[in-house]
Amino acid sequence: MELLNALLKLTALERLPRAGWLLAGQAVAEPVAAHGLGTCLVVLALGPAVEPAIDLDRAVSLAALHDAPEALLTDLPKVASQLLPPGAKRQAEELAARELLAPLSAAALARWREFHAGETREARFVRLCDKLQMGVRALAYAQSGARGLGEFRASIEELEADEFEPCARLRDQLVAALDAD
Amino acid sequence: MELLNALLKLTALERLPRAGWLLAGQAVAEPVAAHGLGTCLVVLALGPAVEPAIDLDRAVSLAALHDAPEALLTDLPKVASQLLPPGAKRQAEELAARELLAPLSAAALARWREFHAGETREARFVRLCDKLQMGVRALAYAQSGARGLGEFRASIEELEADEFEPCARLRDQLVAALDAD
Amino acid sequence: MELLNALLKLTALERLPRAGWLLAGQAVAEPVAAHGLGTCLVVLALGPAVEPAIDLDRAVSLAALHDAPEALLTDLPKVASQLLPPGAKRQAEELAARELLAPLSAAALARWREFHAGETREARFVRLCDKLQMGVRALAYAQSGARGLGEFRASIEELEADEFEPCARLRDQLVAALDAD
Amino acid sequence: MELLNALLKLTALERLPRAGWLLAGQAVAEPVAAHGLGTCLVVLALGPAVEPAIDLDRAVSLAALHDAPEALLTDLPKVASQLLPPGAKRQAEELAARELLAPLSAAALARWREFHAGETREARFVRLCDKLQMGVRALAYAQSGARGLGEFRASIEELEADEFEPCARLRDQLVAALDAD
Amino acid sequence: MELLNALLKLTALERLPRAGWLLAGQAVAEPVAAHGLGTCLVVLALGPAVEPAIDLDRAVSLAALHDAPEALLTDLPKVASQLLPPGAKRQAEELAARELLAPLSAAALARWREFHAGETREARFVRLCDKLQMGVRALAYAQSGARGLGEFRASIEELEADEFEPCARLRDQLVAALDAD
Amino acid sequence: MELLNALLKLTALERLPRAGWLLAGQAVAEPVAAHGLGTCLVVLALGPAVEPAIDLDRAVSLAALHDAPEALLTDLPKVASQLLPPGAKRQAEELAARELLAPLSAAALARWREFHAGETREARFVRLCDKLQMGVRALAYAQSGARGLGEFRASIEELEADEFEPCARLRDQLVAALDAD
Repeated sequence: MELLNALLKLTALERLPRAGWLLAGQAVAEPVAAHGLGTCLVVLALGPAVEPAIDLDRAVSLAALHDAPEALLTDLPKVASQLLPPGAKRQAEELAARELLAPLSAAALARWREFHAGETREARFVRLCDKLQMGVRALAYAQSGARGLGEFRASIEELEADEFEPCARLRDQLVAALDAD
Repeated sequence: MELLNALLKLTALERLPRAGWLLAGQAVAEPVAAHGLGTCLVVLALGPAVEPAIDLDRAVSLAALHDAPEALLTDLPKVASQLLPPGAKRQAEELAARELLAPLSAAALARWREFHAGETREARFVRLCDKLQMGVRALAYAQSGARGLGEFRASIEELEADEFEPCARLRDQLVAALDAD
Repeated sequence: MELLNALLKLTALERLPRAGWLLAGQAVAEPVAAHGLGTCLVVLALGPAVEPAIDLDRAVSLAALHDAPEALLTDLPKVASQLLPPGAKRQAEELAARELLAPLSAAALARWREFHAGETREARFVRLCDKLQMGVRALAYAQSGARGLGEFRASIEELEADEFEPCARLRDQLVAALDAD
Repeated sequence: MELLNALLKLTALERLPRAGWLLAGQAVAEPVAAHGLGTCLVVLALGPAVEPAIDLDRAVSLAALHDAPEALLTDLPKVASQLLPPGAKRQAEELAARELLAPLSAAALARWREFHAGETREARFVRLCDKLQMGVRALAYAQSGARGLGEFRASIEELEADEFEPCARLRDQLVAALDAD
Repeated sequence: MELLNALLKLTALERLPRAGWLLAGQAVAEPVAAHGLGTCLVVLALGPAVEPAIDLDRAVSLAALHDAPEALLTDLPKVASQLLPPGAKRQAEELAARELLAPLSAAALARWREFHAGETREARFVRLCDKLQMGVRALAYAQSGARGLGEFRASIEELEADEFEPCARLRDQLVAALDAD
Repeated sequence: MELLNALLKLTALERLPRAGWLLAGQAVAEPVAAHGLGTCLVVLALGPAVEPAIDLDRAVSLAALHDAPEALLTDLPKVASQLLPPGAKRQAEELAARELLAPLSAAALARWREFHAGETREARFVRLCDKLQMGVRALAYAQSGARGLGEFRASIEELEADEFEPCARLRDQLVAALDAD
């Protein structure tokens, strides 16, 4: 039943809010699970245009898993991560990933670790997609009336995306759209 | 900007509730996006144990995309689908998928269609994982105090899972846990 | 107990969101039940000024019932209705109305059908009030900070209201107020 | 624009919670608007069986309007009404009804007053339907897992419904169903 | 167990919305409990600068208790208080305070009464902090995109704060920030 | 304006959920601000009975401030704290308290530090009240239908409360009530 227990714990991703939006004043924040799925969709949108080609489907798996440990750790906003001692969050994530993903499958844990190690092209690509999903979400908030999201715009603008041209293009479109809004 | 517009529309998956839980009396329903991610996680949990081996990562992509058209159509509960003329929902999903997924990438639309055609082993496996995720969610609701979920237990019990033994095993665990609760 | 069961099912109207607001980016959407009551109030506001006089109270009954089948079908946004085959939604509504309203009373089902047939002046008047309530709601959203509601303004402006002068007047006030906002 | 302003204020009925459910521990409470519409539906369910016949549609209008002043006053739970000086709530409701309903139409204000005077058979019938809707809601909460609703069961059981046999019958069904639950 | 029962009833402060925000169109309103804690924080921010010195900690106690009776009475918006007969709300608050706070401790009831009598400098200071917290909340809403809060700005501007210079200073900053927004 | 900025940031306490309830399956979790106020109320309930007497009002101030740094750090559930390196959370809290509370007043920061140092009797008393509030909340959840709160019952039972007899008494009542439920 270890597998079922892990799946039950992972349902918390549906209820846990992405904390950055709460700190920025939004009354109802995107759940972590929606960010996870949204990152998969950004991967599926940009991945096929990456050159040289990447393993698109493996990249989707990395995206689906990348925040799974938050079902135990919750989503720490950027400011919180900065106040913790260096490496503290990373260590906690590794422990949480082991507890939650090892009972699913060795492949699940391996793909999560690939994402966090950031050594494969797929992992680096998904890390950009993770940030770009935040930009898409910020733009959607802004277009429906939200304000006070300047720090999110700034994070998007600062993204280094030279390795993946489709990411650089979406970054630029997001910044332009946020500015036009 | 067609790609960005499609990604913006897809953020609605975060807000759209899985309607079956609302009809069953739950005040706050799982969002469609959380179901999508949860299905990916079931795939990652059961897929590596499937014999003969399937393409695990492609199955995850199918799971991530399988309900994407609901960003235009919303989630129709089972009872609503049954009241529509035969084939009506299917036709609408195909049109919505074209509108939302074609701007992402040809691969995204192709994978969605593979899921709905149900002709590959990966597609049939993900369709079972889609239902099993509903069982995991029903059990999580029940364990935190919800009642009145009998029809969900019945759907799980009736699942035909002979083709994929790991799915049959999780189905049986779910039924047993729902009965024990 | 058939009557009580139908009333229990109809409580879902309280939890089901008006999907159009969710697709437009609002985090919390008006429930279907609130739209139903709001339509009754628009009828009570405009009905007494209609000439020649209509049966005001019967019009209120039509308004109260007009979306009752959504307790089974959920609220389909305009875009979803357009993607379904012609007549599909109508047929499903008729079946759902029978299942939910026949157990209440023959009068309830008859009034719902009168609304949907649109052959009496009361029915045509309530259909306009249904749309005008949407305009009032859009304006209320806009005045509390929402943006991105342009398509709702457009729907209101296009309303043909020649048959009922008080409706035409409210339509024009709504468009003016949305533009001034 | 007085009419439009009143309609805008009345949209608050969608957001205002029925306070009794909050005090009883429910995290998400039925909005006042949903109670209003639900009362209309109980009227439409029981009204046609009342003997001698009542004016069904006028009764629906009374139901739709009966709590409209709460858009200014909010919903006071029973315990709050009991702590206010005798007549205080009634006086405030009359002032609020004048402010909110007179701009709609004379008919709207007249029907609200008919309900509160309780002198017509329709008014007395709707007052019972108002309470019975609360019983239906309590039962729906209980069937989806809520507990701690004993005081609502007690209120239903104590309802004097001799004047309207269909109301007495639903009351008894509700008590039986709450006890069976 | 009277003490425990009172504490259980007071948990309703978490679920009860500050009604003024709902009437002003916000979909999700600050809970009464958050207003209570926020008032404590304003006291702790401004209190140490008050001259001659006040009893800072007793002022915090007054702030923590000042709206406790709302766990029975709910939060009446300004407009509702004005529609009740003079003194009605005050009388109900005294009765509710007795029922909820006497079981906690004599000190709790005494501090609540000190606040409402407004005869000590601490009580008058906390009454200003109560209003200033509303101004901080209004500004936070406005900065995240809310509109339609003009009446709150007006209330803040009209605050008489001559007795407590730090309150006058925060009032002026709030008005300036609301205007700049 | 540093003071006003800190007050604005602290409004996030209203939106941040107490994460433990989310992980335990509750759909809507108590906000951190409500926990803060609830702790003040437990202090006011039990403090006057403590012997020898403590400084009741200073204890209330400690309670009001004890979780203020969570406006930057968010609420870490117990399991998350255990996965972080020893001392990591403590260090982050100290930094966050400095950033948020120093702009309020030296007194605010001093009281927060007194709580966390745990060296005064008031601080140790408030630490128990912090846990007892969690027990009151768990009991309120359970009485309205929640299940799956066994770990909270266990934490309450294990509380060492020898130093403060009124705390020991409430702990025992809570355990008895949770068991009776």
